[in-house]
Amino acid sequence: MHWCMVMIPHWEWIIEWFSRKEGHLHGIEEVYYIGKTKYQHVAIVKTGSFGKALFLDGFVQSTEYDEKIYHEALVHPVMLTHDHPEKVLIIGGGEGATLREVLRHKTVKHVVMVDIDRELIELCKKYMPEWSQGAFDDPRVTLVITDGRKYVENTDEKFDVVILDLTDPEKGTPAIYLYTREFYKKVYDILESDGLMVTQATSLRYYIYGFATIYNTIKTVFPKAVFYRVNVPSFSSDWGFVVGSKMVDPPVILQENRRERLKELGELYFVDEDALKHMFWIPRYIRKNIEKYKGISTDENPLQLGLLDKTPLF
Amino acid sequence: MHWCMVMIPHWEWIIEWFSRKEGHLHGIEEVYYIGKTKYQHVAIVKTGSFGKALFLDGFVQSTEYDEKIYHEALVHPVMLTHDHPEKVLIIGGGEGATLREVLRHKTVKHVVMVDIDRELIELCKKYMPEWSQGAFDDPRVTLVITDGRKYVENTDEKFDVVILDLTDPEKGTPAIYLYTREFYKKVYDILESDGLMVTQATSLRYYIYGFATIYNTIKTVFPKAVFYRVNVPSFSSDWGFVVGSKMVDPPVILQENRRERLKELGELYFVDEDALKHMFWIPRYIRKNIEKYKGISTDENPLQLGLLDKTPLF
Amino acid sequence: MHWCMVMIPHWEWIIEWFSRKEGHLHGIEEVYYIGKTKYQHVAIVKTGSFGKALFLDGFVQSTEYDEKIYHEALVHPVMLTHDHPEKVLIIGGGEGATLREVLRHKTVKHVVMVDIDRELIELCKKYMPEWSQGAFDDPRVTLVITDGRKYVENTDEKFDVVILDLTDPEKGTPAIYLYTREFYKKVYDILESDGLMVTQATSLRYYIYGFATIYNTIKTVFPKAVFYRVNVPSFSSDWGFVVGSKMVDPPVILQENRRERLKELGELYFVDEDALKHMFWIPRYIRKNIEKYKGISTDENPLQLGLLDKTPLF
Amino acid sequence: MHWCMVMIPHWEWIIEWFSRKEGHLHGIEEVYYIGKTKYQHVAIVKTGSFGKALFLDGFVQSTEYDEKIYHEALVHPVMLTHDHPEKVLIIGGGEGATLREVLRHKTVKHVVMVDIDRELIELCKKYMPEWSQGAFDDPRVTLVITDGRKYVENTDEKFDVVILDLTDPEKGTPAIYLYTREFYKKVYDILESDGLMVTQATSLRYYIYGFATIYNTIKTVFPKAVFYRVNVPSFSSDWGFVVGSKMVDPPVILQENRRERLKELGELYFVDEDALKHMFWIPRYIRKNIEKYKGISTDENPLQLGLLDKTPLF
Repeated sequence: MHWCMVMIPHWEWIIEWFSRKEGHLHGIEEVYYIGKTKYQHVAIVKTGSFGKALFLDGFVQSTEYDEKIYHEALVHPVMLTHDHPEKVLIIGGGEGATLREVLRHKTVKHVVMVDIDRELIELCKKYMPEWSQGAFDDPRVTLVITDGRKYVENTDEKFDVVILDLTDPEKGTPAIYLYTREFYKKVYDILESDGLMVTQATSLRYYIYGFATIYNTIKTVFPKAVFYRVNVPSFSSDWGFVVGSKMVDPPVILQENRRERLKELGELYFVDEDALKHMFWIPRYIRKNIEKYKGISTDENPLQLGLLDKTPLF
Repeated sequence: MHWCMVMIPHWEWIIEWFSRKEGHLHGIEEVYYIGKTKYQHVAIVKTGSFGKALFLDGFVQSTEYDEKIYHEALVHPVMLTHDHPEKVLIIGGGEGATLREVLRHKTVKHVVMVDIDRELIELCKKYMPEWSQGAFDDPRVTLVITDGRKYVENTDEKFDVVILDLTDPEKGTPAIYLYTREFYKKVYDILESDGLMVTQATSLRYYIYGFATIYNTIKTVFPKAVFYRVNVPSFSSDWGFVVGSKMVDPPVILQENRRERLKELGELYFVDEDALKHMFWIPRYIRKNIEKYKGISTDENPLQLGLLDKTPLF
Repeated sequence: MHWCMVMIPHWEWIIEWFSRKEGHLHGIEEVYYIGKTKYQHVAIVKTGSFGKALFLDGFVQSTEYDEKIYHEALVHPVMLTHDHPEKVLIIGGGEGATLREVLRHKTVKHVVMVDIDRELIELCKKYMPEWSQGAFDDPRVTLVITDGRKYVENTDEKFDVVILDLTDPEKGTPAIYLYTREFYKKVYDILESDGLMVTQATSLRYYIYGFATIYNTIKTVFPKAVFYRVNVPSFSSDWGFVVGSKMVDPPVILQENRRERLKELGELYFVDEDALKHMFWIPRYIRKNIEKYKGISTDENPLQLGLLDKTPLF
Repeated sequence: MHWCMVMIPHWEWIIEWFSRKEGHLHGIEEVYYIGKTKYQHVAIVKTGSFGKALFLDGFVQSTEYDEKIYHEALVHPVMLTHDHPEKVLIIGGGEGATLREVLRHKTVKHVVMVDIDRELIELCKKYMPEWSQGAFDDPRVTLVITDGRKYVENTDEKFDVVILDLTDPEKGTPAIYLYTREFYKKVYDILESDGLMVTQATSLRYYIYGFATIYNTIKTVFPKAVFYRVNVPSFSSDWGFVVGSKMVDPPVILQENRRERLKELGELYFVDEDALKHMFWIPRYIRKNIEKYKGISTDENPLQLGLLDKTPLF
């Protein structure tokens, strides 16, 4: 046995339980905020490996060192696929980074961001301003504090792009009704005729049946549905996304005008021409696993993930 | 705060320390063997998430549920790039799974496998026969128990392909001299004029400078060098590989005869035509990080990774 | 923050959960056996702090470095209180160390040891011979493999001393019926008219209400009942014991002949004249807590401890 | 294997490393403060098992649920042994609970409390007022912010009782010079002719050689030296204290007037007549271990504990 000399600078730790069988130990270097809002347990801390990080109900949501990967991957594929996105709806995304990425697009005239948790947004603004970078103050933005489901059911507006930046549909949380067929139908209804939506779609490792169910459900509502993935180091696995489109075939094959628009976005961290192409590839063993699951999520029988349900991919 | 009902069936755990700031908790369902060989601490256990798994000196080497991803990704790109690989040298790979994948190739007439740790091989044969699947008994195989460096320096044989399936170059282990310029020169010398080599090249997250150094070093020896990566869930990050080639340009663009040879390999778990194409893409932020590191590894000043040196990618 | 240089020689760990809120990390230096018998999960390992140790269902039972404290404290107070103990019944105590301590007493002519788990005894004999030190081979010993409750209900023998060296009455285990009023009545019945019994009585910190319930229950059956405690480092808390006596007042005030008998036991690790006096003292805050709990354990409504029930002492 | 249903309400944890081989997991229910003062890392949190707790540099100092045991045991034995304590010096004890216990004694006219860390005292006053209960505002108290060693070397005052409520003499901390022979000599000099001192003296399990060294050192300075111990649940072991006395023989055998003074202190949690008697008993195996260590601590060669030095008791 080789002994390893190790410095232990951390006494406080977050144990992120992936399942009852596995966890991730994050050394805490600094605590900015640990407490509860009306809706969730919030920890904003500096982790040893990922810098500043937001944990909701024990799960890492985004971190200083790789949030750009997740947020760019969530936003730009649909935004660039749409021919001329002007009106955008974001549901969730309390950190403000999804908003930040949407606002990079010069075509955008109005963004409605809907989040249920006002306290969380205030905490993010206060302790994680690097995420929103002033996005909340952009005059194109309307912030609405309400349940995303309610907003979608009651709005009269129409949107070009809808972006669902939600927590996972964990058992017992309101998020589960933002992944059902009924909800996606409402999203369909408030999209313009060439509109499209994207949702984060959980982990390709822990929640493959969740991912598959989300994909299956969107496929029953939208004429075109595709999935893609990206490796987000702090999520400890490849992460899935699903697009639903009314007309255009996503992902758009980059054409001259898209290349121009991509350049206009400025220096990105993760997304470039190559990334837009390769992130739509999913290894065969994952595709095979996705095909195993045939279920869809409905209001009556919604997808409800739980630690106990988390089964590994294979 | 939502409380989560959780079943805890595990009392024994392996903490895999990625650095002094971060670790991975693996619940142990069954212990097959925990002990020491002359060279390393060995744990062969059933983990909660990845099934049967081999840990060497505290680091997961391969697991029942995803070893195929790693071993197929290590072996097939170089084997398929070579026009007609007959003589193959494997250094390391005690589990026997690299050997198993090499033997799939019908062109192969002779494989020399060199490993320093006879006890480890015996333990793998006894407790993890699913890995080697009888490969050690194949008449084309010669097993040599010695230090890989010594073997390469003293052999008179020439090889078409050399595959380095090594533990990471951790400080204080003999593996560090299997990643130096001097070593790669010896490998060059025992390769036929159209030969090529591949090495596992550590984590793209924890050891990016290690990965970059290995790549830089191989580039100084071989006329052609390329890297690729694959996500191995149980490694908790994307994993890197580097190819050095004397003549052919890897990765070969799949041609008719390669497609035929790919089919002959039988049903693979991870590698297929698409995978062979996409795994050579590395996201821009990783490429940029690789470019930051200019150093090479030499016998005098070898690359020596250590827990203390593990810095995150970003 | 002062950084601490630390050597981490352990990769495998046992997490002993005291409750859902607290646990104990034991570094594993060597694994002798981890597996299951028909009745329980067994781990016999070398821990970093306590040497060789036996864990049953995740809880430390006894360790190389302090098992003598526990076993001497369990056995000698009742044995020395009895005027001339010849026939002794032990229930539980698979390690053989309780047996070892009983056999130190020269008055003893016959010891019946009853344990439900033959496999456990075999494992202890094989991997922990330091505990029993040959006690199982003593001609005065009869080993009976059966449920302790059944044995007590069916035997025709009478005993001078009964020693209950049981696992805690954890929910769902057969042990819960070895802590009820009905059981203690049976024990009463098989004791000679000057007989006495002792039982381990759980932790004075985690299970104070369990301890109190055991004491309350024994008080309803035996004319005399007393409790005592001892600090067992590997149990991470003071540990409780309860004596039930038909006639003699325990603890006996040491008289000349007891002092002689104490000497005859040879060099003990923990028990001496002072210990016999002081271990019967229990701090006032613990006594007050004991008094809070009035319940008794019956077959109909047995004491059933559980991780969820573990509340701290205060 | 019995599976246990467990609720996990905690995501943040403190791992208190007892040594490189062993640790204690404390679930964090609420964070009041985590940060650094000029001198130490401070965490004031609500733990799952012990309520509100103060951790300094990763070690629990005192907790809501059992701080009274520690502070009463530290203060009252020496205070009651002294015939008429009027002038008391406390070094350390930033929580204010030692002060609180000293002020219970009606004979006390003046208490000087010396602590090096003003920020810590402010944090304790703000987040842990239950500890000091207003003691800092008592007109008999003078608070001096300076190094305890310096104070003792420079003061002209004389005291009846000196109480050393210090952090352990961990390598690299200023505390190590508050455990040396030279320091104790200065304490001797500022004590009245019938004065006495007491110091916390580390763990009887982890730091037995530290405890023994402190005892040995005090014995070379004071004509009378005795040790005692108490079980503090949150310290996970019995805890040691050492008294040095110039004249009186501690512990005083309780006489009429002491009994009266004990009553005057009001309702205590841990200390009573019995406790005062029994806490001076130390089991034989611990005494034997203490006798093994002959060293003393001097300015030139001070006792310096460290995680690496922590060896178990046995």
